[in-house]
Amino acid sequence: MSGEHMRQEMAEQPARLHDLISRSDEIRERVRKTAPSPMHGITIVARGSSDHAATYGRYLLEAATGLPISLAAPSLHTLYHAAVDYRGQLVVCVSQSGRTPEIVTTLDHLCAAGGQAVAVTNDRLSPLAEAADAVVELGVGEELAVPATKTVTAQFTAFALLAQALGSTPFSGKDLAALPGLVEEMLDDDEPAVMAAETLAGASHLIVVARGFLYAAALECALKIKETCSLLADGYSSADLRHGPIAAVTAGFPVVALNGPGPAHDDVATLVGELGERRARVLTIATDADAAMPLPPDVPETLLPILAVVRGQQLARALALRLGYEPDTPEGLSKVTVT
Amino acid sequence: MSGEHMRQEMAEQPARLHDLISRSDEIRERVRKTAPSPMHGITIVARGSSDHAATYGRYLLEAATGLPISLAAPSLHTLYHAAVDYRGQLVVCVSQSGRTPEIVTTLDHLCAAGGQAVAVTNDRLSPLAEAADAVVELGVGEELAVPATKTVTAQFTAFALLAQALGSTPFSGKDLAALPGLVEEMLDDDEPAVMAAETLAGASHLIVVARGFLYAAALECALKIKETCSLLADGYSSADLRHGPIAAVTAGFPVVALNGPGPAHDDVATLVGELGERRARVLTIATDADAAMPLPPDVPETLLPILAVVRGQQLARALALRLGYEPDTPEGLSKVTVT
Repeated sequence: MSGEHMRQEMAEQPARLHDLISRSDEIRERVRKTAPSPMHGITIVARGSSDHAATYGRYLLEAATGLPISLAAPSLHTLYHAAVDYRGQLVVCVSQSGRTPEIVTTLDHLCAAGGQAVAVTNDRLSPLAEAADAVVELGVGEELAVPATKTVTAQFTAFALLAQALGSTPFSGKDLAALPGLVEEMLDDDEPAVMAAETLAGASHLIVVARGFLYAAALECALKIKETCSLLADGYSSADLRHGPIAAVTAGFPVVALNGPGPAHDDVATLVGELGERRARVLTIATDADAAMPLPPDVPETLLPILAVVRGQQLARALALRLGYEPDTPEGLSKVTVT
Repeated sequence: MSGEHMRQEMAEQPARLHDLISRSDEIRERVRKTAPSPMHGITIVARGSSDHAATYGRYLLEAATGLPISLAAPSLHTLYHAAVDYRGQLVVCVSQSGRTPEIVTTLDHLCAAGGQAVAVTNDRLSPLAEAADAVVELGVGEELAVPATKTVTAQFTAFALLAQALGSTPFSGKDLAALPGLVEEMLDDDEPAVMAAETLAGASHLIVVARGFLYAAALECALKIKETCSLLADGYSSADLRHGPIAAVTAGFPVVALNGPGPAHDDVATLVGELGERRARVLTIATDADAAMPLPPDVPETLLPILAVVRGQQLARALALRLGYEPDTPEGLSKVTVT
C-alpha cells in the first residue's frame, strides 16, 4: 500500500501545468481558427473525470463567451442516432486517452451534423484527435495510477485556456501563470490531508458540497474518494442539497465542503452552519483561515477549482492509505472504459 | 406513519395526467408562438425534482428538435451575473411552485439577454408564470406531501407535450393518451413495491442506474428514496457508473436498475450481470418479464420514464413505511426551497 504512482503523478502537476500554460498562445490561435462564425453555442462531450472538467468548462466558457453551453448526452448520438443540426456549434470533446469509443462516435455524429470539433486529449495520435478539427494536447505523459490526477488538472486548465481563446476571462494570464507554483506549495503540505483522512476514517459514505465554479471540483473530489476508498461519495451543489438530499444528513454524517471567495461564499458558509446544527461531521477545503485543508487566498474564484481538485487528490490518497487500500489500483476499475 | 397525502397525490396522477394531455393542442399553439425563429437551441432551468424532469426534457427535446439543449447553471446568472447572449434560445423554466427565487431570477436574466421563455409551473399566478412569455400550467392542484409526486409526473409529461409542439416526437398522440391508464394499472399493483422494500430494508445507501431516456427516472427515483427514507441514494447512468463509481459496489450493495426496450437495454442488462458478479443486491424496475417491479411492455421507450417515476414513488413510499418513517413529512425538508 504505497500509492506511489498516484503520488508521483500528482507531484508532476506543477511542471506539467506550467508546460501546458506556456502553450496558451499557440492553443488560442488553433482554437480561434476552428470556432464557427457565427458561433451560437458550445457543446462539451465527456464522461467520468473528464465530465467534471467539462462541468468546470461549462461555467467558465459561458462566463467568457456569454453563449449557452451544453453538456452533450452521448447516448442520444451513439445509441439513438438522433437527427441533429449542430451548425454554429463548437464541439469540445474531452478524453484523456482519446480512445473512449462513445466520445469518438459522438464527435463524428456532431461534426456530420455541422459542428466544428476541438479534441482535448493526452494523445495527439488518438482516434479522437484524428477526428477533430483542432487538438488541445494535454502533454502530461502517461498516467499509470488508475485514479486520474495530472490528466484531470490538465483538462481543467485546458478549459481555462479555451475560455481565454474564445472570450473574455474573469482571470488574467498572470493569474494562470501563478497556478503551478501554488499547486506545488499545496503538494508540499500533505499534513492537512493526513489529518482530514483520520477524521473521515470511520465513514462508509460521504458527500462533497460546493457552489458555482467550485461545484465541478466537488464532483471530482467525490469521484476520487469513491474510486480510491471504495466508499460511496457524491458531489452536490449546495443549492441542490437543500432541495431534498439534505434529509439524508444526520448526526455524524461526513460532509466535505469546498469554499472560496466570491458570491457563492456566503451560501456555502451558511450551509456549513446548517450542517453543523444537524451535527454532521463537516470538513472544509477553503480559503477561509480556519479551513481543515486550506486553499491559497489570492486566487480568482474562477481558477480555484484547479487547486481544490489537488486538495481532493491529496485527501483521496491519504484516506485510501489510512484505510489500507492501494490507491494506484482500486479494485475492479480499469483505465479505459468502453461504453 | 401512513403517508396518506403522498398516497392520495400519487392516486390522483391518472386523472391529472389525462387532463394535462387533453390540453396538448392549446399548449402546442402557445409554445409554437413563443419559440424564437430561427431557434438555435433550448435552455432548461430547474432545481431539485424539477431538474430530473429537465434531464428527461433534455433528451426528448434534442431528439425531437435536433437542436443542442442546455441545462442552465443558475448560479452563473443569479450569483455571477454573467453577461450573456441568449438570442435564438427558447428558455424553459420548471418550478412547481413558480416561486423558487433562483429560477425566477434566471428567467429574468436570460430573457433580458434575448431569450424567449416558457414557464412550466403548477401556479399560473406565480412570479415565474408572470415573468414568462408563455405558461404551461400543470394543473395538478395543491401538493401537500413534501416529496413531490403528481407535480413531477406532470412536469415529465409537460416535456413530452413540449417535444410534440417543437419537433417530431418518437411517440404518437395515441401513446401519450394511453399513459394515464397505464399509471392507474401500476398504482393498483402495489405488491411489488412492498416486496422490493422488504429486500432493501437493511440498506444504509443504494444507487439507481439506467441509461438513455430512463436515466432521468433513475435520478428522480433516487431522490424520492433519499427524501423519504433518510438514506443515501444516488442515480447514475450505467456508462458513468463504469467510469469509477462501480468501485464502491461490493457484496450486498443494493442497486436498483431501470431498464426498458430499445438501444440502451443490452448495456443495462450487461451491467446488471456485472453487478451480480460483484454479488450486489440488484432490484429491477423494467419491462423484462422477470423484473421485480414490472413496467408495461408496449410503451415507447421515450415515454417509459414517466411510468418508471411512478414505480420509484411506490418504492420510496413503501420503503419509508417499512422503515417506520412518515413519507409525507420527511425530517428537515420544506416544500419551497429558497436558494
